[in-house]
Amino acid sequence: MIATSTAMTNSPDLARSHLRVGVIGCGRIGRVHAEVVARQLPGVELVAVCDTDPERAEALGRQLGAAVSGDPEELIGGSGVDAIAICSSTDSHADLIVRAAAAEKAIFCEKPVSLELDELDRALAAIADAGVPFQVGFNRRFDPAHESVRAAVVDGVIGRPHLVRISSRDSAPPPLEYLRASGGIFLDMTVHDFDMARYIAGTEVVDVYARGGSRLGIGVEAAGDVDTALAVLGHEDGCVTAIDNSRCTAYGYDQRVEAFGSLGMAVLSNPPLHTGSLLVSNGGLTTGLTNSFLDRYAQSYLREWEAFVESVRTEMPTLVGVNDARPPLVIGLAAKRSLDEGRPIPVAEVEASAVGRPG
Amino acid sequence: MIATSTAMTNSPDLARSHLRVGVIGCGRIGRVHAEVVARQLPGVELVAVCDTDPERAEALGRQLGAAVSGDPEELIGGSGVDAIAICSSTDSHADLIVRAAAAEKAIFCEKPVSLELDELDRALAAIADAGVPFQVGFNRRFDPAHESVRAAVVDGVIGRPHLVRISSRDSAPPPLEYLRASGGIFLDMTVHDFDMARYIAGTEVVDVYARGGSRLGIGVEAAGDVDTALAVLGHEDGCVTAIDNSRCTAYGYDQRVEAFGSLGMAVLSNPPLHTGSLLVSNGGLTTGLTNSFLDRYAQSYLREWEAFVESVRTEMPTLVGVNDARPPLVIGLAAKRSLDEGRPIPVAEVEASAVGRPG
Amino acid sequence: MIATSTAMTNSPDLARSHLRVGVIGCGRIGRVHAEVVARQLPGVELVAVCDTDPERAEALGRQLGAAVSGDPEELIGGSGVDAIAICSSTDSHADLIVRAAAAEKAIFCEKPVSLELDELDRALAAIADAGVPFQVGFNRRFDPAHESVRAAVVDGVIGRPHLVRISSRDSAPPPLEYLRASGGIFLDMTVHDFDMARYIAGTEVVDVYARGGSRLGIGVEAAGDVDTALAVLGHEDGCVTAIDNSRCTAYGYDQRVEAFGSLGMAVLSNPPLHTGSLLVSNGGLTTGLTNSFLDRYAQSYLREWEAFVESVRTEMPTLVGVNDARPPLVIGLAAKRSLDEGRPIPVAEVEASAVGRPG
Amino acid sequence: MIATSTAMTNSPDLARSHLRVGVIGCGRIGRVHAEVVARQLPGVELVAVCDTDPERAEALGRQLGAAVSGDPEELIGGSGVDAIAICSSTDSHADLIVRAAAAEKAIFCEKPVSLELDELDRALAAIADAGVPFQVGFNRRFDPAHESVRAAVVDGVIGRPHLVRISSRDSAPPPLEYLRASGGIFLDMTVHDFDMARYIAGTEVVDVYARGGSRLGIGVEAAGDVDTALAVLGHEDGCVTAIDNSRCTAYGYDQRVEAFGSLGMAVLSNPPLHTGSLLVSNGGLTTGLTNSFLDRYAQSYLREWEAFVESVRTEMPTLVGVNDARPPLVIGLAAKRSLDEGRPIPVAEVEASAVGRPG
Repeated sequence: MIATSTAMTNSPDLARSHLRVGVIGCGRIGRVHAEVVARQLPGVELVAVCDTDPERAEALGRQLGAAVSGDPEELIGGSGVDAIAICSSTDSHADLIVRAAAAEKAIFCEKPVSLELDELDRALAAIADAGVPFQVGFNRRFDPAHESVRAAVVDGVIGRPHLVRISSRDSAPPPLEYLRASGGIFLDMTVHDFDMARYIAGTEVVDVYARGGSRLGIGVEAAGDVDTALAVLGHEDGCVTAIDNSRCTAYGYDQRVEAFGSLGMAVLSNPPLHTGSLLVSNGGLTTGLTNSFLDRYAQSYLREWEAFVESVRTEMPTLVGVNDARPPLVIGLAAKRSLDEGRPIPVAEVEASAVGRPG
Repeated sequence: MIATSTAMTNSPDLARSHLRVGVIGCGRIGRVHAEVVARQLPGVELVAVCDTDPERAEALGRQLGAAVSGDPEELIGGSGVDAIAICSSTDSHADLIVRAAAAEKAIFCEKPVSLELDELDRALAAIADAGVPFQVGFNRRFDPAHESVRAAVVDGVIGRPHLVRISSRDSAPPPLEYLRASGGIFLDMTVHDFDMARYIAGTEVVDVYARGGSRLGIGVEAAGDVDTALAVLGHEDGCVTAIDNSRCTAYGYDQRVEAFGSLGMAVLSNPPLHTGSLLVSNGGLTTGLTNSFLDRYAQSYLREWEAFVESVRTEMPTLVGVNDARPPLVIGLAAKRSLDEGRPIPVAEVEASAVGRPG
Repeated sequence: MIATSTAMTNSPDLARSHLRVGVIGCGRIGRVHAEVVARQLPGVELVAVCDTDPERAEALGRQLGAAVSGDPEELIGGSGVDAIAICSSTDSHADLIVRAAAAEKAIFCEKPVSLELDELDRALAAIADAGVPFQVGFNRRFDPAHESVRAAVVDGVIGRPHLVRISSRDSAPPPLEYLRASGGIFLDMTVHDFDMARYIAGTEVVDVYARGGSRLGIGVEAAGDVDTALAVLGHEDGCVTAIDNSRCTAYGYDQRVEAFGSLGMAVLSNPPLHTGSLLVSNGGLTTGLTNSFLDRYAQSYLREWEAFVESVRTEMPTLVGVNDARPPLVIGLAAKRSLDEGRPIPVAEVEASAVGRPG
Repeated sequence: MIATSTAMTNSPDLARSHLRVGVIGCGRIGRVHAEVVARQLPGVELVAVCDTDPERAEALGRQLGAAVSGDPEELIGGSGVDAIAICSSTDSHADLIVRAAAAEKAIFCEKPVSLELDELDRALAAIADAGVPFQVGFNRRFDPAHESVRAAVVDGVIGRPHLVRISSRDSAPPPLEYLRASGGIFLDMTVHDFDMARYIAGTEVVDVYARGGSRLGIGVEAAGDVDTALAVLGHEDGCVTAIDNSRCTAYGYDQRVEAFGSLGMAVLSNPPLHTGSLLVSNGGLTTGLTNSFLDRYAQSYLREWEAFVESVRTEMPTLVGVNDARPPLVIGLAAKRSLDEGRPIPVAEVEASAVGRPG
């Protein structure tokens, strides 16, 4: 079973009603977090924003009434900030975590924490040393529909899980430059689903078999990547998860999860754009799906922040903490290897090749 | 509340395991009943069929291995028949009921029993005098989805009913000749829904307001009829039912019922032709509905016969008996008057104009 | 058919890119509008808020960075405001409209404009005299699901409408004091549905038959009101609308519309709280509905403002203007009379009793 | 791509309007076929039934008015029979096919044709030699919902298929004795899904990765079998199919298929028992699923016979013929080996180990 961190945070001064947050990274997801922090959380204040692009930071700071900092070091080191939201590019995450931990700030970090196992371990070690609150931005865990499937497992409503099915498909592929730097579909996209598999089943993954292909003609093969993938995860208790991904559907953003267990099945389906429909001579017509993950998961961004703030205030472990940051990366690395070698890969094999590194 | 008939049948000899049935009328609905009787009911035998058209009777008899009788009198009077299924034209029902009652046969009669209140009362009186089992063919009561809505009321799951909504729309209009002899939409089509309103709400209807129009261009106005109708029924306890009808939809046979009560709502929707669907760039597509009431209600024909046979065998009152045959006709007559006069009509007003007649 | 207002506005100075809005009334719905104006509309500025309760105004102004005005007259008369949003209590609407029209401001007014026909006519006359843009807050028209049903009629997808069904039921009744001042269920609640009937069918209503009862034990009968109602509307072209209402469901906020026409049916159903569901041994379980109209219609508030701002900027008639403000009130008064007198009421009869008044 | 058999049958005398059928095997599925043949197919006659249990044959023959034969040889060899339906135990199929082919009868054979590749090849060779019509009973292909998914691929509606998902789960496990003789879950149960993967995707399967476990406590592990399984199929064009199975759900017979392609997705879901539902304070409740594959697939049995009879009469190839009988068995054998060896198995590897055998 997945261990719940029981370590208490050692920063009692964070446990207060007024929480001051600085956001590093003012891109698309950074703006989402900054707006939640500035407007939707009672007793929480957005004190500063920071970006490598000063204009982007300036615009966001003006819109939300926050100070603008040109230097993340300054923002992290300042005494007027209690918590740091790290929303910058993935390769900067580990360094920023290490600095924020040293400054004894509570840390919220976008996923993935890192594409490199040793970098990730360095960051997690710093968090452990400092004992600061830490939450990773696996926002889907805070989507009410996903939570309902998880709750059906936790509460025993569907019994012991036998099979988990996850479909996670984007409505349109990102630019090729993005794809080249993404670490590949398993670390960039499926990583969310690897987290979901652990969250839904409640058990650790022990082996991975992955397949994939370049089916969309978007040029991923040149980058050594695939655009369509299937991953099969074996869990420690024998439960099996099947995940399928595509970089492009014709019909919108497709996100479904199903947990099948000894007493029943819990499912989440896609919400339609609206609930109007037609019935005419050739059948029924309903609306399609949103194309936007921001629309689909709007609630989850607020709810993950409510949970993070609550954890900081009550000095309780966060709901998605250090124990949850590492496994999705390890599973992703195993998936990559499985695709390359055409055989199922024990997760322990990936761990073994990382021996000697902290974690 | 609707009284349940408590009178036991006085024909103990019918209460036996082997039941011999004769079917009068070999048209579309007669063939449905004959096939159920011949093939789907253990211990029940189709002994004879009868029709004014000898070829039609001959064909059905041959197909199902039953004798053919040219004369209903002969079939009813014969000693080899325990129960009569009356599936002939509506204007012959009352006479056949009177004869079958006199011959002490159990009687199953298609709806409506009659379009004339005095004829209906004559038939019901004969049944009461003879004490024979009697069931009227309001088959929708035996459809599992309709039963589930009724059960939600009876079991208290939705509390006290406040509002009932019924949509009942045909996929295509019958021939104009049929319409001319039908007694009008309220006696021909809505009569099923009037029965349903009583069945679902579990209370008697005390007044009716009806509207309608000729919207389909099928010529009903020449026959003094409407092809699109709305009827509002006031129940004795204040519950209100709204029924809408159309002789023609573009999309198939549309049958929906909803009961809204103090604790919730019970609904039945239309089954699609099958459960395949599509999701493409312009939305979702599902199949339409069946055009055929025989397909939609196939189960109900078997189940109403199972219930009838069970009632005959156990000498218990039928589930749709003498108390249920009359109210739909009276409500239908009130609806007709309401449409003509443009005002709500108390059901008692229709009864009053029928004073002096049995019932 | 419903006439579209063709009168152009005569306030060319309003047609500019930067629009300054003042909100009068900082209660629940006023706060919704103020937040939309302040945060969600590019080029639109919330310049001031005003309320009879200074603390309420102060809190909202501080939250949204707007000035606070103690006096609506001052806000309306000021040169720094281009448009007024009237969100105060219904009995103040007409006066505020007259003043805002005199000051040549664009006017957005919450529904209902008035509970008194002569007051409403006085307000509409002032708008016509001043030629200012005017939009009434029938927000459901801007809900995407409602729009899709309307579009199916306008685009001819379902052909000529024969029947419209509307269910509109609150999740919990308002306080009794509110109900006493509400003008009764037909003017307070069904008024939205009367607007919807005209919007969906696209034709005027010519007569009304209403029924209702006190079924919930919430004390409305003492106020001469009902808590459960059914209204049947006859449209000028023979289309019939059936509306049902309840002040309280056990299962959440229930809002459904169906348009049945010669070529098909357009329907809108209730969105569930989320899309998770269960399938266990005793059947399937889904979530219920939201209890909150603010949640259900969140999108519509933004979209009605986008439409209003667009109309003001382009000097085009608003989508819900003077022609749409009056009919729902007249229909509501007819419904009230129908309930009292137990007969269908021609809308012309209500108009006739208002003879001699402007409008 | 899957080759369509182009060989015409060489039995012109079968191509006549009156077709006489003999059914061998009067167990559950034999009775289904016999009833379809006897009652639902115009111009088709059930002339004889045959079973190793004379009482069982006697009962069915009496019920359906067919002769009873104690000896399959006699039935096959008789001149009064045009077509043989082989519904006996799987180990008898190959022999009966060989005999029926020798007797130049049209052959309908229940799936699987054999659990042994060489036996299957012997039977297929006999069919090819005799040139008789042959159809294997993969009835799901004739289910309208499954057909709709296939049609969406064939017609190009969803574009080129990238991913196929199949869930196929029984409501309750068969007796342990049955399981012991079943050949294991992949040959007994998944074989239907292997056929479906080829049918839906329209391409051959080239490799298989399978996982499974004993999760239900029904004793399959003693028989070297699993009760819960996941199989991943690689198709020749790169499409990937994921199939999951369980011997027991808590909620009924669960059969779903999804094809995801470049232009959209085609899905089939489970039909509920009926269309009634509830909405109460704690959410919505719907019915569960049937427990019976006979109920779920009732239509498909009739439609596969209609197709078979049409093929025989028109001398056209059957829709599920010799080319479709072999691949599911080969894929099943590969799946078994994959489960044993923990690696993906090329289908060619199974073929290679069967070298020297006919086929």
